[in-house]
Amino acid sequence: MSAAVAEETVSPSGPPSGGKKLTKLQQLRAQRATALPEHPWPENPVFLPQLAELIRAGDCCGLWDGKSDARILGGYVVTKEQRKTIPIIGEPDGRVLRRLTMFYNAVGTAIGRRTDVIATPLMELSDEGFGRVVLTAGRLVAVSRTLRDVHRFGFDSLEEADAAGAALVEEGARMIEAYPGIVSMA
Amino acid sequence: MSAAVAEETVSPSGPPSGGKKLTKLQQLRAQRATALPEHPWPENPVFLPQLAELIRAGDCCGLWDGKSDARILGGYVVTKEQRKTIPIIGEPDGRVLRRLTMFYNAVGTAIGRRTDVIATPLMELSDEGFGRVVLTAGRLVAVSRTLRDVHRFGFDSLEEADAAGAALVEEGARMIEAYPGIVSMA
Repeated sequence: MSAAVAEETVSPSGPPSGGKKLTKLQQLRAQRATALPEHPWPENPVFLPQLAELIRAGDCCGLWDGKSDARILGGYVVTKEQRKTIPIIGEPDGRVLRRLTMFYNAVGTAIGRRTDVIATPLMELSDEGFGRVVLTAGRLVAVSRTLRDVHRFGFDSLEEADAAGAALVEEGARMIEAYPGIVSMA
Repeated sequence: MSAAVAEETVSPSGPPSGGKKLTKLQQLRAQRATALPEHPWPENPVFLPQLAELIRAGDCCGLWDGKSDARILGGYVVTKEQRKTIPIIGEPDGRVLRRLTMFYNAVGTAIGRRTDVIATPLMELSDEGFGRVVLTAGRLVAVSRTLRDVHRFGFDSLEEADAAGAALVEEGARMIEAYPGIVSMA
């Protein structure tokens, strides 16, 4: 029930049918969803569909139903101008942290699809937005990255996000294929 | 100045000299420090001296000066009876988390002393006290442990704590010595 209401409320395909009375918040959400332009979807994306799939898998209440992948992943695009306006003082925004976590989770599952070995992400962040993320498989560190200015995590375009994710998947998969002995160690 | 005062206040070697007037809190602290019995120090400890050294290295204000290693590490002893009384609901206590972090940090530096390769700890904990810790060196996971019931992190005795730490160091050092190629990868 609640799922159906939410879906209708934020549907981007026009104003919701007049049958239901919307709260002010729901109206605002519906307006905003249709008002914001979608970022251009890259040709032949490799990584982004898997990222969108993972995000949809965690959609408990149907909020993303009827929205395109480009809209769901819109938050991953942070232009240079936007980046400059985000302060890097204090804790990073919760939404940025969720995006970052989801990004590396998706890298892990994508590596799993390619190599049949899921690389488990492990992230440690300071409150100042510095830290480290690794994806481990058995006793191998398949992917390792230093994170900084996490507050401003994002890409210039969806195409760039796709390329960045695909590069991480490629790196991790190649490591796992190169060292099967280390990967199979408990 | 402040360091000297603190040292005198909490000195376990008897009540502080009458020259200084102590605040109520300082009096309580001094009483408590002498009242609590020290846990028996193990014979020929391997790991605990390094753990104590690391904790002393972070002692900004001289609070640990004049205290024995056994007292500094007293918090690592949690008896079975104490353990039962600690609820595992809600976030783990901050002091427990600090002890846990320090424990694995010390394992990393101890591995570094033995192998000349420092293993970097990376820990991820849920608010419910479940999680994972790895110590990585280059592309190798030297040590990997699942953590659970972190709220009750502790050992039956200092001897057991020493053995547990030494076992982790041993495991990590052996891994690093066995796979130098993986360790030297960036």
